[in-house]
Amino acid sequence: MPEHFNLTVEGTVAIVSLDRPDRKNPLTFESYAALRDWFRDLNYDDKTTAVVFASNGGNFSSGGDVHDIIGPLVDMDMKDLLRFTRMTGDLVKAMLQCGKPVIAAVEGICVGAGAIIAMASDIRFAAPDAKTAFLFTRVGLAGCDMGACAMLPRIIGQGRAAELLYTGRSMTAGEGEAWGFFNRVIAAKDLKEEAVNFAITVSTGPNFAHMMTKTMLNQEWSMTLDQAIEAEAQAQAICMQTQDFRRAYEAFVAREKPVFEGN
Amino acid sequence: MPEHFNLTVEGTVAIVSLDRPDRKNPLTFESYAALRDWFRDLNYDDKTTAVVFASNGGNFSSGGDVHDIIGPLVDMDMKDLLRFTRMTGDLVKAMLQCGKPVIAAVEGICVGAGAIIAMASDIRFAAPDAKTAFLFTRVGLAGCDMGACAMLPRIIGQGRAAELLYTGRSMTAGEGEAWGFFNRVIAAKDLKEEAVNFAITVSTGPNFAHMMTKTMLNQEWSMTLDQAIEAEAQAQAICMQTQDFRRAYEAFVAREKPVFEGN
Amino acid sequence: MPEHFNLTVEGTVAIVSLDRPDRKNPLTFESYAALRDWFRDLNYDDKTTAVVFASNGGNFSSGGDVHDIIGPLVDMDMKDLLRFTRMTGDLVKAMLQCGKPVIAAVEGICVGAGAIIAMASDIRFAAPDAKTAFLFTRVGLAGCDMGACAMLPRIIGQGRAAELLYTGRSMTAGEGEAWGFFNRVIAAKDLKEEAVNFAITVSTGPNFAHMMTKTMLNQEWSMTLDQAIEAEAQAQAICMQTQDFRRAYEAFVAREKPVFEGN
Repeated sequence: MPEHFNLTVEGTVAIVSLDRPDRKNPLTFESYAALRDWFRDLNYDDKTTAVVFASNGGNFSSGGDVHDIIGPLVDMDMKDLLRFTRMTGDLVKAMLQCGKPVIAAVEGICVGAGAIIAMASDIRFAAPDAKTAFLFTRVGLAGCDMGACAMLPRIIGQGRAAELLYTGRSMTAGEGEAWGFFNRVIAAKDLKEEAVNFAITVSTGPNFAHMMTKTMLNQEWSMTLDQAIEAEAQAQAICMQTQDFRRAYEAFVAREKPVFEGN
Repeated sequence: MPEHFNLTVEGTVAIVSLDRPDRKNPLTFESYAALRDWFRDLNYDDKTTAVVFASNGGNFSSGGDVHDIIGPLVDMDMKDLLRFTRMTGDLVKAMLQCGKPVIAAVEGICVGAGAIIAMASDIRFAAPDAKTAFLFTRVGLAGCDMGACAMLPRIIGQGRAAELLYTGRSMTAGEGEAWGFFNRVIAAKDLKEEAVNFAITVSTGPNFAHMMTKTMLNQEWSMTLDQAIEAEAQAQAICMQTQDFRRAYEAFVAREKPVFEGN
Repeated sequence: MPEHFNLTVEGTVAIVSLDRPDRKNPLTFESYAALRDWFRDLNYDDKTTAVVFASNGGNFSSGGDVHDIIGPLVDMDMKDLLRFTRMTGDLVKAMLQCGKPVIAAVEGICVGAGAIIAMASDIRFAAPDAKTAFLFTRVGLAGCDMGACAMLPRIIGQGRAAELLYTGRSMTAGEGEAWGFFNRVIAAKDLKEEAVNFAITVSTGPNFAHMMTKTMLNQEWSMTLDQAIEAEAQAQAICMQTQDFRRAYEAFVAREKPVFEGN
């Protein structure tokens, strides 16, 4: 069991959440580092096929803790500040490069680095009470935190992202669904179960191919169209040499449901 | 007349569709190649001003045929696989570089490579029954097919694209319109006519300038903002030396409707 | 006072608008250049914290004047044409690089270069009667004007942008809000005041950090994800050495509202 966040496993799905629900699950130096390391290791873990990043006690995360993180930061020198901001960025990089789909299940407060964790997930479900705020401006900082100025505009559009980043205001669950941030709004009592079920369903698919989908969604981010099309020709040719491709074909011919094995 | 797809002409508008409506218009090795070659040649064809990619028998396309394409692929070596995936990618490149607006008119089934053809069009209209699925995952493959991981996120947003690509689920016509995939939903009985009328209307515009609009929408895909603004300064200066620019001005002064000639 | 556009100041918020409301505020060679120079100088102006680009007499702008601009352009040689298109692009570059959030308040007619000015703003509010048209095609030109083929797709999606650029049709205020072009639709009588209030509210935030948010939203446009995350680690570390970051922390500890000073 990890020390600085919660981890349970359901079949091949890992369910993580932040702890200290009494304080709405703030991040600390230790939980940033622990999550970064866990997502990095996940890249080499063949037994886990998907991740649900869940809420805890009715909230997702209150972001970097004011006392445990912001207090020390105001007195740091540049060397240590950059070490910190790179560590937070490394958590996002590790999530993007973990090779498995990450499904965020967002209840209640989801702000600051918490909102970033949701943003860096592949799929996002929300309870109706979800309040998602990129509130860095409220603590005197810029909206460019952990990749937000690059990723948020591609999810909800440049104009809406600009408003959220300049004002730090909360995006409601309904706005998030209308704007494409949340894939679905689900009653709080069903949220975690539906997120886990979604993860299980995706996991019955071809997991090597899912890894390639995730890789290419990130890899093609700033390619030209010609480069992206060539990159996909190569990536898909690789997938066509997997057994899962053959399994799907043979199941189709036999009028059966394919059983994928991830290779 | 082409051999492996349907082609009719209405004025300067080419109307293409896939054939074999009894099987919902699957693609074959031959139709991929024929379409690729036709779109490539279109680049040099001054008589055609726009393309409608229509449905046939109530469906758009069922994608790569399971028996004619997937069967052979599972036994190919890497050299031949890559030749195939590059051929499919070359169809998308040819559509992007054909120099004319392409309007997809999507009825019924629009899946796999069929969904990609819709995605690679400039404008998309749908009948209410359109079911669009990037279902590569269902056949054991990745979502990165023919440019989908690059293009779909820019059309409907990164989060929605991720869901469609990981699950292979159908996007309804209503979702597609709300998300910006479809420009309009139109009753099936009027769909083709409205798509052709749209193509005719666009064709009364300055077709050299339209070609430049299409070129730059693709060309600026991954430029910096400064590069894009300079590229547009050059591209628009070119357009300002066309006769169509003068024709528009002179028509305005004469309080007439301009008649553009595409030069 | 500038000569070729209107400028008033409310606190630290500059309110600009085009003049000649009897002709719906067309742009001229002179107002292009004057606005470009004003936005360039704004970069060095510490007293102004935000800009409202307002409407005048019920309209935003009718774009490049047919008589004053298009007439001369049809007789220019390439050298002068490129000088002109670069000047218009330089206005967009100057708006992007001015270091302050720009809020467009759009009433009535907002077309051609007027639509571009709205597009190049950070936040856009509209009156219900706003008619926004990228109508370059109507005057015989391409949609690639002043960055539109790069920026519009990132704001409203690639498919919707293609339709607007190929047809030149008006986008209604309601469409613009649903598509993410407008952040909010506001009754015409309240529009300017709400835009100014929004600008004042944002200005009470950390203005150095806002400048960094704007810088990075543009700077990361075509970076890879890894580059963007590293760029934000550096940019945010810079912001963590501002006094405003400390002020926010100290206010939080004292249970007070922070008073930011922009350094």
